[in-house]
Amino acid sequence: MVHAHSASSAVQTVPTRSALARLFDPHSVAVIGASADPGKRGYQAVRGLQEAGYAYPVYPVNPRGGRLLGLEVASSIAQLPYGVDVALIALPAAAVPDALRHCAAVGIPAAVVLANGFEETGAAGAQAQTALARAIAATGIRVVGPNTSGLLNLATGANLVGVQNVPPGAISVITQSGNMLLSLVNDLRALRGTGIHAYVGLGNQVDVSYDECLAELARHPETGVIAIHIEGFTDGRVFLRSAARAIRDTPVVVLRGGRSQAGRATARSHTASVAGSDAVAAAVLRQAGVESADRSDELAVLANALASTRPMTNGRGVVVLSDGGGHAALAADALAAAGVELAALADDTRDALRQLLGPAAAVFNPVDVAGATDTDPGLFADAVEILTGDPAVGLVLIVGMYGGYHLRFDAALAEQEAAATARLLECTAAQKVPLVVHSCYAGGRNVHHDLMRARGVSVTSSLDHAARIVAALQRRGRILATAAQRSSFALPHPAPRLVSDRPVLDEPAARTFLSQQGIDVGEWTVAPTIADVVVAVREYRRPCALRIVSPDVVHKSDVGGVRLHVAAADAEATATAMIRSVTSGVPGARIDGIIVTPMAEPGVELLVGAMRDPVFGPVVAFGSGGVLVEARDDVTFRAAPLTDVEALEMIEETRASRLLDGHRHLEAIDRKQLTRLLVRVGAIVAAHPEIAELDLNPVIASGTAILPVDVRIILSDNDTEEAGR
Amino acid sequence: MVHAHSASSAVQTVPTRSALARLFDPHSVAVIGASADPGKRGYQAVRGLQEAGYAYPVYPVNPRGGRLLGLEVASSIAQLPYGVDVALIALPAAAVPDALRHCAAVGIPAAVVLANGFEETGAAGAQAQTALARAIAATGIRVVGPNTSGLLNLATGANLVGVQNVPPGAISVITQSGNMLLSLVNDLRALRGTGIHAYVGLGNQVDVSYDECLAELARHPETGVIAIHIEGFTDGRVFLRSAARAIRDTPVVVLRGGRSQAGRATARSHTASVAGSDAVAAAVLRQAGVESADRSDELAVLANALASTRPMTNGRGVVVLSDGGGHAALAADALAAAGVELAALADDTRDALRQLLGPAAAVFNPVDVAGATDTDPGLFADAVEILTGDPAVGLVLIVGMYGGYHLRFDAALAEQEAAATARLLECTAAQKVPLVVHSCYAGGRNVHHDLMRARGVSVTSSLDHAARIVAALQRRGRILATAAQRSSFALPHPAPRLVSDRPVLDEPAARTFLSQQGIDVGEWTVAPTIADVVVAVREYRRPCALRIVSPDVVHKSDVGGVRLHVAAADAEATATAMIRSVTSGVPGARIDGIIVTPMAEPGVELLVGAMRDPVFGPVVAFGSGGVLVEARDDVTFRAAPLTDVEALEMIEETRASRLLDGHRHLEAIDRKQLTRLLVRVGAIVAAHPEIAELDLNPVIASGTAILPVDVRIILSDNDTEEAGR
Repeated sequence: MVHAHSASSAVQTVPTRSALARLFDPHSVAVIGASADPGKRGYQAVRGLQEAGYAYPVYPVNPRGGRLLGLEVASSIAQLPYGVDVALIALPAAAVPDALRHCAAVGIPAAVVLANGFEETGAAGAQAQTALARAIAATGIRVVGPNTSGLLNLATGANLVGVQNVPPGAISVITQSGNMLLSLVNDLRALRGTGIHAYVGLGNQVDVSYDECLAELARHPETGVIAIHIEGFTDGRVFLRSAARAIRDTPVVVLRGGRSQAGRATARSHTASVAGSDAVAAAVLRQAGVESADRSDELAVLANALASTRPMTNGRGVVVLSDGGGHAALAADALAAAGVELAALADDTRDALRQLLGPAAAVFNPVDVAGATDTDPGLFADAVEILTGDPAVGLVLIVGMYGGYHLRFDAALAEQEAAATARLLECTAAQKVPLVVHSCYAGGRNVHHDLMRARGVSVTSSLDHAARIVAALQRRGRILATAAQRSSFALPHPAPRLVSDRPVLDEPAARTFLSQQGIDVGEWTVAPTIADVVVAVREYRRPCALRIVSPDVVHKSDVGGVRLHVAAADAEATATAMIRSVTSGVPGARIDGIIVTPMAEPGVELLVGAMRDPVFGPVVAFGSGGVLVEARDDVTFRAAPLTDVEALEMIEETRASRLLDGHRHLEAIDRKQLTRLLVRVGAIVAAHPEIAELDLNPVIASGTAILPVDVRIILSDNDTEEAGR
Repeated sequence: MVHAHSASSAVQTVPTRSALARLFDPHSVAVIGASADPGKRGYQAVRGLQEAGYAYPVYPVNPRGGRLLGLEVASSIAQLPYGVDVALIALPAAAVPDALRHCAAVGIPAAVVLANGFEETGAAGAQAQTALARAIAATGIRVVGPNTSGLLNLATGANLVGVQNVPPGAISVITQSGNMLLSLVNDLRALRGTGIHAYVGLGNQVDVSYDECLAELARHPETGVIAIHIEGFTDGRVFLRSAARAIRDTPVVVLRGGRSQAGRATARSHTASVAGSDAVAAAVLRQAGVESADRSDELAVLANALASTRPMTNGRGVVVLSDGGGHAALAADALAAAGVELAALADDTRDALRQLLGPAAAVFNPVDVAGATDTDPGLFADAVEILTGDPAVGLVLIVGMYGGYHLRFDAALAEQEAAATARLLECTAAQKVPLVVHSCYAGGRNVHHDLMRARGVSVTSSLDHAARIVAALQRRGRILATAAQRSSFALPHPAPRLVSDRPVLDEPAARTFLSQQGIDVGEWTVAPTIADVVVAVREYRRPCALRIVSPDVVHKSDVGGVRLHVAAADAEATATAMIRSVTSGVPGARIDGIIVTPMAEPGVELLVGAMRDPVFGPVVAFGSGGVLVEARDDVTFRAAPLTDVEALEMIEETRASRLLDGHRHLEAIDRKQLTRLLVRVGAIVAAHPEIAELDLNPVIASGTAILPVDVRIILSDNDTEEAGR
C-alpha cells in the first residue's frame, strides 16, 4: 500500500474541481473489478491506461489482491486512498450499487459503470437500474452509464475505453453506444483530418447526462468541436439550453439514432430512451444552432470540417471551381441537395476569368476551367485570387482532381501544384474565405492535400460530403451572425391559468381566449337558436360557415357538424339539417349553439399550432394546413417561446413557404404578420403550461389577412405539471 | 511500311464485326495527331496503349513522320493500311472533319474525337460541330465524342484514355465526362471490390449514343454491370428501350449530372445537352429497371455491389444482425431512408436466437447480439445459420465491427473470425441469401473482408452505403421477378387523330372524347342557357358545380368562372352572376354554355395527367391533386404506355398513396380501379401523339368512385410530329 499512499497526497491537491471536471480529466483512476484475464474489461482498462501513457496513479481493485501489470491490487475499495477522481467499475450489474456506496465512502466523486443488464433488458434489468439510481441518490456520486464503453481523455492519456490507436485531435465525442467511437475513429482515419480529444459513452444515462457533458467538454480548451451520437434525451429542454450556450464558441454536430420508426423501436430496446417526435427533435436542434448529420457517415465528416475550417461569417455566397464539366454539374446538384445556392459572380470577375482561362472555360458559377489547368495547375491559384476578390464570394469549393495533376498527367506537375497550393492557402487566408476541396485523389496519401488540411482546408473525395460541409459552414456562419437574436430556451413564468371544466375548450371559449391574447380570429357569432343563425348569416351579407358547438362532438365534420358556403336563403334549412345530422350521429349530444363565421376569402391554407413534446416541452408547429394535414407531410416545429428570426427560418423550411410569395391568382402573404402570429402562439403556450394542444387549422392567408378558420384548444389533464420549471 | 503491311492482313481477318463491336474491342488503333511531347494526348495515347500491354498494332500518324516510342510514324492517314478498327483523333477541332474523311477513305469504321471547342463553347463551336456532323453523315464513320477523354477495354489493353493503373474488373462504364472515370477508379480502389472492364466517354454525343454503347457493352461477356454517368439523353425513349432489354441480364446503374436547376444549367453549357424534367427522368429510369445513384459517391458503390452480390430474388425480407445497439438503430434508420422494410422474424427464430445469444441480446429485427460475440465471433455464424433458415429472411445485413474483432479485442480472435467467415459464406451461399456487411474496419486491408468480397459479399464502412446496396439488391430482384410484366417502351401505332380547331379542347369535347375512350367522367350536362342550368341542377337533386365553357377563358376560376355547391334555389342567381363576372374579367369572351356537374362526394383529391416530355416522349403523371398541385410537390411519372405493375409502383411512390387506404372518415380507395385509369390514360396519350397535355385534376376518389372533376386536353401545334415513330 506504500505506492497508493504516496499518490494520495497528489490526489488531494485539486479538491476544488467539480465532479464532472474530475471525471473528464481524472488525476487518478481506480479500476474496480480489475482482472488478470486479458479478455476481460478489468484487464484491458488497466493495460489501456498504461499503453496510453496515463501519468497519474492507477489503482486496480480485486478481492484476490496481488499484482497486475506491475501494479499492486487493492483487495477492497475501502483500502483505496481517499479522494481518487474516478472509479471505473467493471463488475456485473448486481454488484454495482454496493460498489458505488463503497466508492463514495472513500471520497470518489464519479464512477463509470460498464455493465449491461439494466433497463435495456426488460423487467429484471429495470429493477437493477432502480437499485443503481437509489445508490446514486443516497451517495451523490456521479455515474456515467450503465451499459457503456467508458471514457477517454487523450490529453492526459486517461483511456478508460480500452480502444488503442485513437488519433489525437480536436473532436470531443459524446455517444450513447461504445461502438460509435470505433466508427468515428476509423472514419476520421480515412479522412486524414483531425482526431479525438475526449470521449464519453453515456449508455443508459442513469445519471450523467448529455447536457452536462456538453457543457463540461465545451470548457476544455482542446475541444474544437463536439460530436454527439444520441438515441434519446432525458430532458430535451435542458439539452437545448446547454447546446444554445455551447454553440456560441464551439460547433456541435449531432447524429441521432432511432429517427425512423424501425430505428426508434431498436433504440428504445437498446438504451430504454424516451422517444418524442423525430421531426420535432430535428427542428429544435436546428433552432439551437446544432448541426445535424442526416447519415451515419456524415458525423466524422462534419465534425472534422467544423473543427478545421473557418465558418462562412461574411453572409456572402458560394462559388464552385471545377476542372471538368462533369464534376461541376454534379457539384451544383450536390450543393442544391444540401440547400446551398450559388453566388452570382460580378461581370468583372467573369471577364477576368475568361481572359485567364480562354474560350473553352465556363465562367458562370460553377466555373469550369475545362482543361486549361491540365498543363498548368497554377491557373487554379490565379482563378481563386480573382474569385476571392469578388464581393459576392464567401467560400470557394474546388472540385475535380486538384492535387492529383502530377498523378494524372505528369509527375513534373507536382512542383507547380505545390506552388499553386501555397498561393491558394495564402489568398484564402488573407481574404478570410473558407476553402473546401473535393478531389478524386483525396482518398490516399497526398502531400498537397495534407498541407491543405493542416492549414484549415476541408479536403474530401466525396462531392456529396463536400457539399454537406459547405452547407454546415454556411449554417454555422448564420448561427454566429444571429446569436443575439436566438432563443435561450428558458420558459417564462406561467401566466394565470386558463380554466375550463372540460379538457377540450368549446370553440367560443377558445376564440375568446385567443382574442384576449392578441390573436385576430376574425368575425364570429354564437347563435343559440336557428333563428339567430338566420339573423347572423343575413347580417354578414356573405356566405357563411356554420359549426356546431357541443361538448359531446369531437370530430364535427364527421357527423355533419360543419356546413360551408351557406347563403342567407338556405340558413334555416341548413342549420336545421345540421342539428338533425349531429343528433343522429351522436345521440343525446348537448347542443350549445352554432358558431357562424363569414366564409374566408380564398387564400392559402396554413397550419399554425402548438403542443407539448414529451422530450422538448412546448413547441410551435407551422406548415401546410387543411383536412389532410398528416398526408401533406409539410409541418415543421420550433421550441416555444421562439424569436422572430427563428419564426422566419421556420416558415422558410416548409413547402408552404413557396405559396407565400403569391401563387397563381393568390396575393403574396405578409411574412412579418405571419411571423408575429407564430411568435405570439409560442409565447402563449410557453406561458400556459396547462395548454396541451392548440390548433389553428386551417389558417387562411392572403395578403395581410391571416385568419384562423378553425380553432381548437385542449388542456392537459395535469395542467400544472410544468408550471414550476 | 513493312511493319504496317504485315499487320494489315491481321486487321482484315475480322471484317464481319459491326463498327461498334470493333470500336469497343479494336484489333488495331491509329493515333491521328501522335506527338513526341509527353504533355500531349497524342503522346500519352501511344504510351498508354503500350503500357497497358495492348497486343494489336498501333499506328501513329503525324505529318512529320519519323519514329515514336519504337513505332514508325505514318506521315498521313492515307498511308495507313486499309481497315484499321479505330482512329483516335488527337487534333484541334478545326482539323477533325477532314481527318474523318481521310479515315473513312482507308476503311476505318470508327473514330474517337478528343478535341473540345465544339457545341459546348457557343456559336463558333456549334458551327464546328455542324461541320463534324456533316463529315460523319457523308462518310458513315461512327464517332465517339467530341469533347471526350476516349475509350478503354482492359481485356485487350485497348487503353485510349491514357489513364494508368485502372483496376480490371466487371464494370463497364459509359460517361459524359472523362474525369468521372478517375472518380470511379479512385472510389473503386477505396472499396477494394471489382474494377473496370470497359469505359467510354461520350462527350457531346454527336454520333455514338448511350443506348448503342449500353447494348454493345451488355454483349461483352466480361461485363457484370453497366455504370452510366449522363448529363442529357439525345433520345430518351430509345435509351429506355435499350435499357429495358439490357437489364434482363445486366444490372445498370445511372448517375445523372444536372438534376438540380443549377446543375442543369452547368450541364447544358458543358455538353450542350437537352434537358427534360428531372422528375420525369428519375421516374422513367426506375420504370425501365435502372438503378439510380442519388449521390455521386453511390455510383461506384452500387456498381460494385450489383456486379458482385446476388440480387434478392426470393421476394423475402431483410434482417439486420448487429453487435451493438448503436449501429443497429442507425442501420434501421438508414434502411428506412433507403425505402427498405425489415422482415418480421418467426417465433422459432427468435427463440433460437435467445437461446444462442443470452438475455442481453435483442432478438427482434434488427438482431443485436449485445456484446455476446466480443469473445466469440463464431456466434455470428450460428446466428446467420438460424436467420437464413427463417422463411421470412431473404438478405442478411451484418453491421458493426465484424472482421475487426481481432483488432478491437484480441489478436487471437483472428482464427475464430476466419472460421466464422467460412461458415457465413457457406450457409448464405447454400441458401442463396445475399450477404451485405458493414464494418467500421472495412476501410483498410482486412483478410476476412477481402475473402468475403471475393465470394460475392458487399463489404463497406458506411452504414448508409450498406443500406443503399440492400435497397438496390432488393429492387434488382423485383425487376427480375416482374420482367415479363414490364414495358418495352415501344409506342403503338397512332389511333385516328383527335381533331379540334382550337389547341385547348372545350370541356364538353374533352369529356366526350374521354368517355369514348372508356374513362368514366361522371354525370355532366352542358346548359346553353341559364334556364337550362336551373333545370339541370334541379334534376341532379344535389348541389352542383357550374363551370363556364368559353374558348376565351383559360383560367376559369381566376375570373369567377367556377361556382361550387350551388343549390337549386340559387342556381339562377349564381349562373347570372357567374356570366357577369366572366364577361367583366374577359371582356368580349364568347360563352358557349355552362357545364353542370353534381358535386362529387367528399374524397381524396388526386391528379392524373399526361404530357409529352421533350426527352422521353409521352408520360403519365400521378400524385396529390387540387389547385395548389405545384406546391404539393407530390407528382410522379411513367413513360406511356405503362403496364399494371408499373402503374401500381407509380401510385406507391407518392405521398398521396398514404391517403388511399382510408384516411380519417374517407373510404379506402380501390387501387385496381385507379391502376386501370392510369393504364388507360397511358394508352390514350401513347396512341394520340396529337395530345400535348391531358389533365384530370382533381380526380376525386372515394371507394370505387374515382371521378375526374375537371378535365382538360391540349393538342400540340404540330400534332403529327411523333406519329411516324
